Amino acid sequence: MPKIIVEVMPKADLLDPQGKAVANSLNRKGHTEITAVRIGKRIELHYDETPTEAQLEEAKAFAADFLSNGVIEDVVAVTVEA
Amino acid sequence: MPKIIVEVMPKADLLDPQGKAVANSLNRKGHTEITAVRIGKRIELHYDETPTEAQLEEAKAFAADFLSNGVIEDVVAVTVEA
Repeated sequence: MPKIIVEVMPKADLLDPQGKAVANSLNRKGHTEITAVRIGKRIELHYDETPTEAQLEEAKAFAADFLSNGVIEDVVAVTVEA
Repeated sequence: MPKIIVEVMPKADLLDPQGKAVANSLNRKGHTEITAVRIGKRIELHYDETPTEAQLEEAKAFAADFLSNGVIEDVVAVTVEA
């Protein structure tokens, strides 16, 4: 099924307590080479047909102003997956 | 910064009420070509140095049994981003 994948992450200068908890836990399990963990969202938009260039541009626009909160999050990628 | 990206999605046969709400909302805004929305997680593991093949295998293992809940979620991708 054709999809657009929108990836959203908490801004780099923002605390991510959930990620911090996972990082601490992985460190305690012995994975000390992991310096930090950040947890964001992966949003799949499903389409019946492969999205057009115009639909991708539309998705980029509403990814920034509807699917993410610009105050605390960054859209890191918007990609078509056929 | 070198990273391993773990992507986790709710299983296909599972209801995703949050995704359903976003899909309805996008449909009401006129994006009727979007048939469904699913919302999962994007987990970034940060490393000081580019992860080795062995570290990637380790990450795949704990992505499946620690970072995701196999009853309701699938790990869809574990990739290195240098």
